[in-house]
Amino acid sequence: MLSHEDNELLTRVGPATPMGNLLRRYWMPALLSEDLPGPDCPPKRVKLLDEELVAFRDTDGRLGLLDEYCPHRLTSLFLARNEECGLRCVYHGWKFDVEGNCVDMPNEPAESRFKEKVRTQSYPTEEYGGIIWAYMGPPEKKPELPGHEFLRAPATHRFVSKTLEFANYAQAVEGGIDTAHSSFLHNNNLTQKGLRQLDTAPRLEVEPTDYGFRYAGIRNAAERGNYTRIYQFVMPFHQFRSARVEGVDPQHRYEMPTMRGHIWAPRDDHSTTVFNWIFAVDEDKPLTPEFIERQEGSAGRGPDGESEIRQRTRENDWLIDREVQRSKTFTGIQGVNTQDLAVQESMGYIAPRWREHLGSTDKAVITFRRMMLQAARDLEKGIDPPGVDPDTYWDVRAVDLLFPEGVDWREGARDLLLARW
Amino acid sequence: MLSHEDNELLTRVGPATPMGNLLRRYWMPALLSEDLPGPDCPPKRVKLLDEELVAFRDTDGRLGLLDEYCPHRLTSLFLARNEECGLRCVYHGWKFDVEGNCVDMPNEPAESRFKEKVRTQSYPTEEYGGIIWAYMGPPEKKPELPGHEFLRAPATHRFVSKTLEFANYAQAVEGGIDTAHSSFLHNNNLTQKGLRQLDTAPRLEVEPTDYGFRYAGIRNAAERGNYTRIYQFVMPFHQFRSARVEGVDPQHRYEMPTMRGHIWAPRDDHSTTVFNWIFAVDEDKPLTPEFIERQEGSAGRGPDGESEIRQRTRENDWLIDREVQRSKTFTGIQGVNTQDLAVQESMGYIAPRWREHLGSTDKAVITFRRMMLQAARDLEKGIDPPGVDPDTYWDVRAVDLLFPEGVDWREGARDLLLARW
Amino acid sequence: MLSHEDNELLTRVGPATPMGNLLRRYWMPALLSEDLPGPDCPPKRVKLLDEELVAFRDTDGRLGLLDEYCPHRLTSLFLARNEECGLRCVYHGWKFDVEGNCVDMPNEPAESRFKEKVRTQSYPTEEYGGIIWAYMGPPEKKPELPGHEFLRAPATHRFVSKTLEFANYAQAVEGGIDTAHSSFLHNNNLTQKGLRQLDTAPRLEVEPTDYGFRYAGIRNAAERGNYTRIYQFVMPFHQFRSARVEGVDPQHRYEMPTMRGHIWAPRDDHSTTVFNWIFAVDEDKPLTPEFIERQEGSAGRGPDGESEIRQRTRENDWLIDREVQRSKTFTGIQGVNTQDLAVQESMGYIAPRWREHLGSTDKAVITFRRMMLQAARDLEKGIDPPGVDPDTYWDVRAVDLLFPEGVDWREGARDLLLARW
Repeated sequence: MLSHEDNELLTRVGPATPMGNLLRRYWMPALLSEDLPGPDCPPKRVKLLDEELVAFRDTDGRLGLLDEYCPHRLTSLFLARNEECGLRCVYHGWKFDVEGNCVDMPNEPAESRFKEKVRTQSYPTEEYGGIIWAYMGPPEKKPELPGHEFLRAPATHRFVSKTLEFANYAQAVEGGIDTAHSSFLHNNNLTQKGLRQLDTAPRLEVEPTDYGFRYAGIRNAAERGNYTRIYQFVMPFHQFRSARVEGVDPQHRYEMPTMRGHIWAPRDDHSTTVFNWIFAVDEDKPLTPEFIERQEGSAGRGPDGESEIRQRTRENDWLIDREVQRSKTFTGIQGVNTQDLAVQESMGYIAPRWREHLGSTDKAVITFRRMMLQAARDLEKGIDPPGVDPDTYWDVRAVDLLFPEGVDWREGARDLLLARW
Repeated sequence: MLSHEDNELLTRVGPATPMGNLLRRYWMPALLSEDLPGPDCPPKRVKLLDEELVAFRDTDGRLGLLDEYCPHRLTSLFLARNEECGLRCVYHGWKFDVEGNCVDMPNEPAESRFKEKVRTQSYPTEEYGGIIWAYMGPPEKKPELPGHEFLRAPATHRFVSKTLEFANYAQAVEGGIDTAHSSFLHNNNLTQKGLRQLDTAPRLEVEPTDYGFRYAGIRNAAERGNYTRIYQFVMPFHQFRSARVEGVDPQHRYEMPTMRGHIWAPRDDHSTTVFNWIFAVDEDKPLTPEFIERQEGSAGRGPDGESEIRQRTRENDWLIDREVQRSKTFTGIQGVNTQDLAVQESMGYIAPRWREHLGSTDKAVITFRRMMLQAARDLEKGIDPPGVDPDTYWDVRAVDLLFPEGVDWREGARDLLLARW
Repeated sequence: MLSHEDNELLTRVGPATPMGNLLRRYWMPALLSEDLPGPDCPPKRVKLLDEELVAFRDTDGRLGLLDEYCPHRLTSLFLARNEECGLRCVYHGWKFDVEGNCVDMPNEPAESRFKEKVRTQSYPTEEYGGIIWAYMGPPEKKPELPGHEFLRAPATHRFVSKTLEFANYAQAVEGGIDTAHSSFLHNNNLTQKGLRQLDTAPRLEVEPTDYGFRYAGIRNAAERGNYTRIYQFVMPFHQFRSARVEGVDPQHRYEMPTMRGHIWAPRDDHSTTVFNWIFAVDEDKPLTPEFIERQEGSAGRGPDGESEIRQRTRENDWLIDREVQRSKTFTGIQGVNTQDLAVQESMGYIAPRWREHLGSTDKAVITFRRMMLQAARDLEKGIDPPGVDPDTYWDVRAVDLLFPEGVDWREGARDLLLARW
């Protein structure tokens, strides 16, 4: 549980909030590259940290991320024309380049120099790994680009997608770093026990790092040893996990070994854009369209995910099917990610954490909160936040494997926890 | 009219409000029995006094009414599995019995005793007369079960239903104890005058009792005497009325003599669950399906009432038909109860009573308000509220009859006002 | 830009606000005549200055505009029966005449004199020029009827319509008196330059008057001289403009010369009823149904306008078509008025004007704000507002014409700026 005050501190992300200020020190994912498919394509609305923005790709392919509202009379630039290297407001034709400069003001006399005095808010962006990243913090503090391994994987080996979630980002992060729930929430076969159902009370070992923390969820797999899932949490909202790829037990190696993760970008206090990534770890095995389609479908992103708007929402109880819940799956809700969204959204837009009762499997959740609160408080005292430098997590990987009893995962998985791309 | 302050006191029912505290001292209807049709059926959401709850019927048929949110991480237990004598949260499998005990915590080590320390809020329930009743007050103050006659009528002779109303409970109660409006609002035949249209200005006589009050609305029926409708108001939100069953005028006796009433359970400040009951008074005449269907249909509950969600709402002006209003019925709105809901909802979610101008037919309304405000204020001083003890209204009935001029209803109806079941 | 404080002063129009008090000193359009098509027709809801009202036409054809809520128990009189010279509440039959007198109280005893003590709020109305006008200010300050020329034009020569806009009235007025945007927003042919596209930076000359102000937007039309559009702004929310009818260039005279305008009546802080008017200036050329249909269609009022509810809204991005925007029209949004609504609504319900950067073409906008703020502040000191007396703008017209270089529009258009009807 958190005090009411700490809950507010953790969850409020708007302009001038301590947590908003902390988050502004990191690169944040704003859009998928495919959301802006080509030069002069239609602009897209972006909401980050409760700021309304508009993104576009100009004639030369450069990206712009501007205040949504034209500084002249506050018309939405979502309506604007994207043409000849700039976004032109439909009201009076003022035009802005990707840097926020006003490059044309056709309703002013030719000799006017007013346009030189007008700028609009523009945030630096970078396109990297299929994602358009934004930096909304103080310019002099702008860090190097994100250092995740998935960004360096070849495009043939990587897939990214995104989903809109109607709950505060912290609920989403906490769901993502909660390894215990997969024994229950994601048990999609009530009649057959998998490794995660054999031992439903994983022992959590959390280890703070320079970039956040890593932790292992250890399950007793009887004669097969310890089934150990090692996750990475990279500040402020990144999770890395592994589809089980290595271990003492070769027959459990997946056909298509992959690494996976989520990034939870806060839209506002009540909603989150979830970026999902996956990459193949074997150089000779690029991701196939069939594999991607299967993954996205089973994650609950396929059919709902053609647009950002899901069909399974709080308003329709995520289309829970009680007969399926009774006889086939633990939840009766289709799709692994939809199951996650359902429980997270079911807590309300901002969970009242002072009512919680945390147990031994909540260690990672507790560490996340402590780290975020500490970093936000430190920043107010002028202390720079952790995990901003991509070097701190450059060579980090998650892993999911079987250990013989007696082997410590820090030792046993040392090499497997190193990035290869 | 009420002062703004008294209006707030009367209408605000959430946790820690004086009126909420008063209402918690009574048994309140939460659901129909049929909403939980059998052991291990899907749980149902319940909202009472602005608290979010979840109701279920366990494997042994016992009823539970719990806080909607799992005390672990606040996931909604509406999503939970109802299995093996408990409600199991889909997030981490915590399981609660009907008393709110945590009976399983499968994500904790086998030796953990954490679950013994965790309880969730559970409210006592009783199933009685086709209704699931809840008590949300201090345990030591829990009264005996409700004492209404309809609860004791045989199931063959009783019918209960429920409707969702989007207005504060007090508006609903006031509509229900307002006898004068039936001459107007429910005049569904403009071309023929009924007894209620012959005299549209009933004389009201209100008599406070131990359980609330009873009152008569007396209309002049010329040579037939006084047409007198005697209602009962039982604290804090019960109305009993009669379909005209007795009197000096035998040809007016109904084919199927019944007693009827409503219970208005406050969901939150802006909405109310209306429970409707009806029972046959003659032992040899059980209710027939045709009779029930006809009643529910004419009440406006039939077609809209398959689910709780009505088709005729504030948003669509209750589908008022102006041509019907011009030529056939006073309102142009179909269904007696829908007519009630329409006028009550049309006042807004909470009527600004300080703008009213009350007249002589508002005596019962005034008495209701005075009694509720007094009881809420008394409770703050430690004085127990009236009407909590079922004995006070055990043998109470309403009646609707014709008296010869000169007979006082208190005397003339003494026997008819006594319960028979 | 405005200070935050002035922005509040300009835009808040509810009861007891300074701007609401100012607006109450003028006649305001409430409905079209056709909204109340005949005696005893169904009543209509009206919202003006955040007051909820109900309008009706009684048996004798007289108009009533009453508080929506019955003073008895606050039932909505929208549900009422309009019969025998009054509006009769469906709850208890209280009946009110057009002046707000309670003329029947059938639930009180015949001898009761209670009804003589009950009145409801009634506002004076006048039907004039196809519009039902309301006056909501102090009775002793009620001005003469509005003096617009369109009101005096024969019904055969006049057309009025109305549209609901989901933004504050001031945004709408500012859009309507902004002449520069027509070069951009309303450029519906990207491949051919019209007079308004040849010079996109009109020179604005604003001239305060007794009734508000008039101003010219002057565009250089090369050898054809100065293309000059002269607008009238009449306090507090009237715009007159001209379809180009006169000038040195006879071939530009329209087939059907007309005057046009808008009236923006504030519903509440966040929405506005836009009244659109048009009248033919030539006595021998009444408006034809084909002309009206074409005008309304091209304005974006035709198909959406059968009811007040538009199909193109903020929620669906005004159905912007990016391909049309790329290749055919500046906005990709269909309908001139819909284009106006789109930019105005896109600013939010109340634009945060402290973030603006105003230029030389915003002179009329600035004058409007200054005049309104001044008038509201003056009224608080007891100074009566300008433009209340219809004589001040009785003979005023707009005009749109070509001048030879060197002719001042005040001189050159003197006669054309005089009303003829």
